[in-house]
Amino acid sequence: MSAFELDPQLAADTVSVADWSLCRVLLMNDANYPWLILVPARPGLRDLHDLAPDDLATVTGEIVRASRALEGLFKPKKLNVAALGNMVPQLHIHVIARFEDDPAWPKPVWGVVPAQPCEPDDLEARVAALRGAFAAA
Amino acid sequence: MSAFELDPQLAADTVSVADWSLCRVLLMNDANYPWLILVPARPGLRDLHDLAPDDLATVTGEIVRASRALEGLFKPKKLNVAALGNMVPQLHIHVIARFEDDPAWPKPVWGVVPAQPCEPDDLEARVAALRGAFAAA
Repeated sequence: MSAFELDPQLAADTVSVADWSLCRVLLMNDANYPWLILVPARPGLRDLHDLAPDDLATVTGEIVRASRALEGLFKPKKLNVAALGNMVPQLHIHVIARFEDDPAWPKPVWGVVPAQPCEPDDLEARVAALRGAFAAA
Repeated sequence: MSAFELDPQLAADTVSVADWSLCRVLLMNDANYPWLILVPARPGLRDLHDLAPDDLATVTGEIVRASRALEGLFKPKKLNVAALGNMVPQLHIHVIARFEDDPAWPKPVWGVVPAQPCEPDDLEARVAALRGAFAAA
């Protein structure tokens, strides 16, 4: 089996925040929503049920960890968690903090408004805040 | 704590297929997509991370079970799994079989085309097929 390599589209759309025991933790470079993407670092996965049972349990715990960090930092109205993958085939899980005044509310975020890249300082601050929240949890 | 009661909107949009150890398994009455909804039968849940750890593991296993049944029956191009809940606050998890010729592909299904209620015979046949797939798995 080949080694894990991050999908180039995911790499282009995000910045890296952390490497957890199984998932790469990425932040979407989109000022519209606090939006993490978890990518299990195993080659050849497409769907959640492709994960080995132990890995599935680990990923589930990492989804909870990401959710709690977003909740603690941003106090969203709701979290959205989704594994879709119709366009990017590599298994990845969206964990998105949603607000009643965000540009897509109450719809799902995909395809509603174009991504709005963050100012470099804002992106760096958001990554630092997330790393702090992960370390504290 | 009050008893679990299915959200009226979910009840209105679906038919019941099964009661698993934790989740009610519902079929969306929408001919556009084979679309299951799992509702953990615990009161007061909004997000995946509200589940107690044991319940989260059970729900994860039930998501896998639903995914495999849809895959076996419908041979989709991709499965979409999502817990959104911006409009219906009760925690529910979508497990949707997606096809390159479905009305929303490759977008997520929500809000693209109105639900197309199934003919009663088709709905009954779909429920029977799902129950057969669940029993066989």
